[in-house]
Amino acid sequence: MKARVHISYKTGVLDPQGKAIGLTLANLGFEGIGEVRQGKLIELELAEGDAEAARKSVEDMCEKLLANTVIENYAIELADD
Amino acid sequence: MKARVHISYKTGVLDPQGKAIGLTLANLGFEGIGEVRQGKLIELELAEGDAEAARKSVEDMCEKLLANTVIENYAIELADD
Repeated sequence: MKARVHISYKTGVLDPQGKAIGLTLANLGFEGIGEVRQGKLIELELAEGDAEAARKSVEDMCEKLLANTVIENYAIELADD
Repeated sequence: MKARVHISYKTGVLDPQGKAIGLTLANLGFEGIGEVRQGKLIELELAEGDAEAARKSVEDMCEKLLANTVIENYAIELADD
């Protein structure tokens, strides 16, 4: 089973890297770009076959290592493979 | 319209950061973890209302700035709002 974890800053948390991307896109001539936010994408291969157990385990990984839950949100997507 | 761009390393490109995450998860006691890959997630707000034009424009952004297409793949997801 494969898991994808999307980690992004919570609303209100400053994201200077996203801001820099937005400014650079504007400088390159792209128009009509509003807020840009940069986050992380982590893809994991899991031996666990049960979706519920896999989700529980990935949630645990997010809380313990992958995300800083003070300033970041995470979303988990599971896919068979 | 909102766009989410997922950027990940192409198959075969070494990903030391992903490897470090995998080793740390194993050290924390998580079992059955195979390959771990770390990528980027970029969320953009676009003034463009037409989905086709928006996708074209975001593809252009990926080619010019967001992704290093020599070693990275990108996937674009569009959502109204």
